[in-house]
Amino acid sequence: MSDYFNVPAIQYEGLKSKNPLAFKHYNADELVGGRSMRDHLRFGCAYWHTMRGAGADPFGVGTMQMPWDDGSASIDNAKKRAHVFFEFLTKCQLDYYCFHDYDIAPEGKTIAESRANLDAIADEFSSLQSGTGKKLLWGTACLFVNPRYMHGAATSPSLGVYAYAAAQVKKAMEVTHMLGGEGYTFWGGREGYSSLLNTDMKRELDHLAAFLHMAVDYKKEIGFTGQFYIEPKPQEPTTHQYDSDAAACLNFLREYNLLDHFKLNIETNHATLAGHTMEHELTVAANANALGSIDANDGTANVGWDTDQFPTNIYLTTQTALVLLNMGGFTTGGLNFDAKRRRESCEPVDLFHAHIGGMDAFARGLKIAHAIREDGRFSDFIKARYSSWDGELGQKVQAGQASFAELEAFALENGDPAQSSGRQEYLENLINEFI
Amino acid sequence: MSDYFNVPAIQYEGLKSKNPLAFKHYNADELVGGRSMRDHLRFGCAYWHTMRGAGADPFGVGTMQMPWDDGSASIDNAKKRAHVFFEFLTKCQLDYYCFHDYDIAPEGKTIAESRANLDAIADEFSSLQSGTGKKLLWGTACLFVNPRYMHGAATSPSLGVYAYAAAQVKKAMEVTHMLGGEGYTFWGGREGYSSLLNTDMKRELDHLAAFLHMAVDYKKEIGFTGQFYIEPKPQEPTTHQYDSDAAACLNFLREYNLLDHFKLNIETNHATLAGHTMEHELTVAANANALGSIDANDGTANVGWDTDQFPTNIYLTTQTALVLLNMGGFTTGGLNFDAKRRRESCEPVDLFHAHIGGMDAFARGLKIAHAIREDGRFSDFIKARYSSWDGELGQKVQAGQASFAELEAFALENGDPAQSSGRQEYLENLINEFI
Amino acid sequence: MSDYFNVPAIQYEGLKSKNPLAFKHYNADELVGGRSMRDHLRFGCAYWHTMRGAGADPFGVGTMQMPWDDGSASIDNAKKRAHVFFEFLTKCQLDYYCFHDYDIAPEGKTIAESRANLDAIADEFSSLQSGTGKKLLWGTACLFVNPRYMHGAATSPSLGVYAYAAAQVKKAMEVTHMLGGEGYTFWGGREGYSSLLNTDMKRELDHLAAFLHMAVDYKKEIGFTGQFYIEPKPQEPTTHQYDSDAAACLNFLREYNLLDHFKLNIETNHATLAGHTMEHELTVAANANALGSIDANDGTANVGWDTDQFPTNIYLTTQTALVLLNMGGFTTGGLNFDAKRRRESCEPVDLFHAHIGGMDAFARGLKIAHAIREDGRFSDFIKARYSSWDGELGQKVQAGQASFAELEAFALENGDPAQSSGRQEYLENLINEFI
Amino acid sequence: MSDYFNVPAIQYEGLKSKNPLAFKHYNADELVGGRSMRDHLRFGCAYWHTMRGAGADPFGVGTMQMPWDDGSASIDNAKKRAHVFFEFLTKCQLDYYCFHDYDIAPEGKTIAESRANLDAIADEFSSLQSGTGKKLLWGTACLFVNPRYMHGAATSPSLGVYAYAAAQVKKAMEVTHMLGGEGYTFWGGREGYSSLLNTDMKRELDHLAAFLHMAVDYKKEIGFTGQFYIEPKPQEPTTHQYDSDAAACLNFLREYNLLDHFKLNIETNHATLAGHTMEHELTVAANANALGSIDANDGTANVGWDTDQFPTNIYLTTQTALVLLNMGGFTTGGLNFDAKRRRESCEPVDLFHAHIGGMDAFARGLKIAHAIREDGRFSDFIKARYSSWDGELGQKVQAGQASFAELEAFALENGDPAQSSGRQEYLENLINEFI
Ligand SMILES: [Co+2]
Ligand SMILES: [Co+2]
Ligand SMILES: [Co+2]
Ligand SMILES: [Co+2]
Ligand SMILES: [Co+2]
Ligand SMILES: [Co+2]
Ligand SMILES: [Co+2]
Ligand SMILES: [Co+2]
Repeated sequence: MSDYFNVPAIQYEGLKSKNPLAFKHYNADELVGGRSMRDHLRFGCAYWHTMRGAGADPFGVGTMQMPWDDGSASIDNAKKRAHVFFEFLTKCQLDYYCFHDYDIAPEGKTIAESRANLDAIADEFSSLQSGTGKKLLWGTACLFVNPRYMHGAATSPSLGVYAYAAAQVKKAMEVTHMLGGEGYTFWGGREGYSSLLNTDMKRELDHLAAFLHMAVDYKKEIGFTGQFYIEPKPQEPTTHQYDSDAAACLNFLREYNLLDHFKLNIETNHATLAGHTMEHELTVAANANALGSIDANDGTANVGWDTDQFPTNIYLTTQTALVLLNMGGFTTGGLNFDAKRRRESCEPVDLFHAHIGGMDAFARGLKIAHAIREDGRFSDFIKARYSSWDGELGQKVQAGQASFAELEAFALENGDPAQSSGRQEYLENLINEFI
Repeated sequence: MSDYFNVPAIQYEGLKSKNPLAFKHYNADELVGGRSMRDHLRFGCAYWHTMRGAGADPFGVGTMQMPWDDGSASIDNAKKRAHVFFEFLTKCQLDYYCFHDYDIAPEGKTIAESRANLDAIADEFSSLQSGTGKKLLWGTACLFVNPRYMHGAATSPSLGVYAYAAAQVKKAMEVTHMLGGEGYTFWGGREGYSSLLNTDMKRELDHLAAFLHMAVDYKKEIGFTGQFYIEPKPQEPTTHQYDSDAAACLNFLREYNLLDHFKLNIETNHATLAGHTMEHELTVAANANALGSIDANDGTANVGWDTDQFPTNIYLTTQTALVLLNMGGFTTGGLNFDAKRRRESCEPVDLFHAHIGGMDAFARGLKIAHAIREDGRFSDFIKARYSSWDGELGQKVQAGQASFAELEAFALENGDPAQSSGRQEYLENLINEFI
Repeated sequence: MSDYFNVPAIQYEGLKSKNPLAFKHYNADELVGGRSMRDHLRFGCAYWHTMRGAGADPFGVGTMQMPWDDGSASIDNAKKRAHVFFEFLTKCQLDYYCFHDYDIAPEGKTIAESRANLDAIADEFSSLQSGTGKKLLWGTACLFVNPRYMHGAATSPSLGVYAYAAAQVKKAMEVTHMLGGEGYTFWGGREGYSSLLNTDMKRELDHLAAFLHMAVDYKKEIGFTGQFYIEPKPQEPTTHQYDSDAAACLNFLREYNLLDHFKLNIETNHATLAGHTMEHELTVAANANALGSIDANDGTANVGWDTDQFPTNIYLTTQTALVLLNMGGFTTGGLNFDAKRRRESCEPVDLFHAHIGGMDAFARGLKIAHAIREDGRFSDFIKARYSSWDGELGQKVQAGQASFAELEAFALENGDPAQSSGRQEYLENLINEFI
Repeated sequence: MSDYFNVPAIQYEGLKSKNPLAFKHYNADELVGGRSMRDHLRFGCAYWHTMRGAGADPFGVGTMQMPWDDGSASIDNAKKRAHVFFEFLTKCQLDYYCFHDYDIAPEGKTIAESRANLDAIADEFSSLQSGTGKKLLWGTACLFVNPRYMHGAATSPSLGVYAYAAAQVKKAMEVTHMLGGEGYTFWGGREGYSSLLNTDMKRELDHLAAFLHMAVDYKKEIGFTGQFYIEPKPQEPTTHQYDSDAAACLNFLREYNLLDHFKLNIETNHATLAGHTMEHELTVAANANALGSIDANDGTANVGWDTDQFPTNIYLTTQTALVLLNMGGFTTGGLNFDAKRRRESCEPVDLFHAHIGGMDAFARGLKIAHAIREDGRFSDFIKARYSSWDGELGQKVQAGQASFAELEAFALENGDPAQSSGRQEYLENLINEFI
């Protein structure tokens, strides 16, 4: 294995440690509720941020020190990056990773050339997977960087662009399949609009649905059994992305008969940009049996774009872990750090600080969430709060067998029900008892 | 008819007029595209704001001068208000109105008493309708003011509250039916949550769906043929309302097999609070064949609550009219001014200024939208922009009969498509040509 | 003392306690860095929320159960409330309180009547203070509820309203002085505008400055030595309040030569509504030597109005305590809970849960902040980060004695400086070490 | 002159024209209130957007077709761009332009090399100015693109970076002076923070003030008489920029005794990102006699970053023109289009559409604002609204000679003043009369 980082493998040292390059909470094989932390959390690393994030922003060029990278678009450079990446995964105890096709391999001048590049690099990844035991959480195709996609990909007004995107996704699915990917994600990078003045929204969404149906067909054709995910985001880069939040995605999937084939990949910073909390979006998805995977990051309050920061807020990780445990944990999904160091964190060691912090925060959230569930005061409170529904009439309503007349009769007989407190402050205090 | 306003009936005086108490654009019987303005716009007036809006806000008590109102909760006072209201509708050329049950009649101490009050006032409204020719656009029940509903109505954790709400909606539907209402609106005043810590979202939504199914059943039972509407709003009063935007409503309606029975009543300020434009929400609803009616108002940019201001922005009214004309106009719905004067606009004459401004703004938007459609440059642009889809392959994709393999073959043969501009700036300039 | 709450006096029981009606962190006399928690935190209770907050919101009437309150505007009722309040302060170990004039006493029909009411109640407060040892953190006048102030008070277009406000503030200052208040706060309830179309901003601000200068004069005249505070808020109730944030207040105070006489009272939820973090606003105020007092509460992310929630977020309380400790602690100010229970927390005991949670959260934040300062890793990091300024040239620049030419010479000689990381992720992880 | 655009010079063709490449409102020499449109509006073009804006965004590379640009960092390429730019200015009737140093010339590897490049290009600009009559509205230095400035420039924790920035600004001022620039702008590209955990805000602001004082000194030294501007922006690229809005800038300038030397350059999209309206920020600046120049653009509502769109909203341009006319018009400043085409507007002709739209929108706003002032109904309304201040007592208050006692006496004598409406709806309708 390569050794590009002057950093030893990160170990669990527990709460007493003051070593910033150690885990204080994440102890991969420690059991929480009978399952190892590793199996609960299924941490993933994003190739695009970790290896390809140079630190550029709309007002400045890249800042990151990447001594292993010669800056070229060569296959050799791409392979070298792959080796550095697997070294990082190994040292950081990250079991999974995610990628876009043209993160890992340079896009060529033609489809054929791009595919040859991708195949060459995919082979390298395959061999690195074997050598390290690391696994692919999900793959995806980059349908937003190339100017070809400026008006959209599967929602482009141009059939030629649409066909190009189909060819690219077809190949990306094949590579994901070859690498044993447990999922494939559709993030509609530019599926949305900049202005409704030049856009036929209905037609674009029809095209998107047709595209996804073809993906479902092709999945069957090649025997890929990984899970398909759609990742909601409300805006950026387009002014309004079609997949703006969990509800918008679910509505689209229901309208076009796609809900059996897709789950959602929920990202914290996308939830907050959409005006929701992460907890809300996770709950909406989980309630629809559609919470597939999580892009674990955080945003900066009061900043209006996707900052993709590493998550360190224990309240956030606790809430996330609670939804996860309540739904029985991940099946194919995981906690993919779709997160990048701040542009000013320009040294390689910052990659370690960043991921260690996120992993520890989720390990801690997991333990807290487990303790909350074991304690039972929250679930008891909710059970009691809805207990009036557990009687005969409540059950009849829930079964869809009641009528306004029956309820009216009940109301006329019983009059105004007694009021009781929602006890929000008590419950907020109770959360702090566990943190 | 009463004469409480020292204001003559508002007349159309045209562009030359400098009379602030005259229409410069709204000429009810003038034809626009073969249909009268009156029939296009179907203006409605909101009883709650116009007659019951006293100007209180979270930091101050009411300010409005309402010399006709003795401040009591008596039936006589309620009747007097009704007379003043119909005078206002008549003088202001507003053809429709909307109400909540306890806007028009005082809520009593018991269901029976409340119903008797409501019947008494409804009779008065019926007679006032006959006398003036004014019509009921839609009715609704107020399920949010009474403390009983603090935790929700159809999503209350208490079955007793739920039953009470059912009894109330049942009656409000009956009254709406008796008054010949063309629709009935469900705005989930407190259907949402303040905190997920004490909330079972899934259970509450199941209950809501059961409630709406019972409403559908009861509608059939009494032969009410008006349209049911759901009105999206993202927050306020709850932290997160379930019907947060058009997509969330459609998703809910699809999930619970209610989409055949409900359309949406889209409000401008709710659209913007949800992080969308009004144009977006209208388009989403229209694309789902679910744009039923419009709560016409506007918000204040940078202010985070529902200000329900009167709409005077010509860009907004033009965009709204364009969506309306493109979908063929209203059937049962209309433009209900769910709008209130600013708290500082405390004199009765301000009610006239407010409605005149909104009506003129929509009349102007209607004429502009019609001109834009007649001109054809916008629709031609869009037609051309998507023209690559009009060929054989595009049609095959749209019919759901294509595959990734076919599209790949097309892409391999044709390579990178030519790029062309989206011409947003040209189109934005073109809008100004019509304004 | 009265006994209206069926709740025993709240005691410190420490971390092991599962009693929700006990402190787990706030131990009033425990020393933190040589000073008692009580003296560090100087907790205050807001009369308006605690005794007068009925739970009304723009969509609903009050919900709170206040069995001691007969709902009348009588002096007797006002006195009874005062007794209940001091019972609450005592049981909850709150050492300070704050009030508006017409929170505590009913406003009369004339100035004379209002003053008589206020005097009667102030006497009762004085005696209750003596009996309980509780103290007045600050007083203020309510210049926003009465319709008289709908266009502003000290910025009203009407001189009559301005004079009325002056008379009211004069009296409120006298009462505050009589009660030994340690400060007096100006929150410009309606000092701002709803629309610039009818507003002369410059003239209104000139009037406001004149008003505050008269207050300074009157303070000297009566020998009141308490601190004057201005409380920033960006909006609500007006569309744009003049005192929108700390910088806007400081700018105003500098422009009108008032900075010697005023400090700021910073509120969390106002900071966030203004697009800042609380930490930012506190730092801006502290840097100007103008951080006087704190309105301790929190908001709901993604909700656009002032929710005035009780603060329980440990990150927030830690950041607040850090700024406080770094500036040497409060002098006249304190942590006033300008916070209200949620509308659904309708039982009297919820007042205890709410305040206990906030007090414990700040006690914990204080201990964490103290530990962070003792640890020294944060301050060492910052010291090192700016160390290049500690040499001769840096000192010369800081002294205002350098020139572009000298710096140019330095740059030409030294060329591009080495880059180093800002280590944000490391520092964020380090915070979690203390939480 | 070069001829790189296949577009004829843009002419005024008036309202009847349907030629998208013509002005319908901007008629440079037409008088509005005795002054030509040209002299009122002083349109400027931003070199960075127009010539260097390639259309890249955080999710994609450049899209713009710039056939004249070979993509190299050569001097020849830089000169060619300059020629194309002056062709564009001429064809589009833009009288002014603005630039950053490294927009126009490639930054070299050393300060010396960079300066040589800049000198070479500045000579070319000088000659192009002479040949075309175009003028420099303001120059500035780019202190944000180079990684050197990632932690700030004049607020960098590194003295070496600070010195480098000083050298760069010194040179940029010289070049601006040589080109006859009428102003020089300081936009603090990275003067702010990403996190307060690693930042000493007070020290950084002291350094910034010292920097600006050195700039003032150097300005005198070289005899540059152009106006210095500070351009507020709340965030982006940093999480919190120090110059967040007009009030924050004015507060800083007052604190550090710099207000005599700086005016503000207000940008629409920065105003809205700060939670203000453009009208508010312009008014705040104008009231402080500090409205120097305007970066004319617009944002997209509900999008949280600086979109720098071309302004076409007539309400916005009318409000802007009203503030301008009310303060007597620009002296050194102008309307600089700090605006870029959408990324999808990739053809050179889109540059014309974009600027034509913005110029016409401001020409129209100017004519409307002039008409509003001539009409007098708005100013009469405001005069009447504040008329109670015109008497003796009001004048005494305004002169700072009144006391609370006098006002109290007035209030006691006069009691509650009569309430009157703010007439906001009437005034909003009145605006539409002019549009
Ligand atoms: Co993501
Ligand atoms: Co993201
Ligand atoms: Co509405
Ligand atoms: Co509304
Ligand atoms: Co406060
Ligand atoms: Co507040
Ligand atoms: Co700018
Ligand atoms: Co900008």
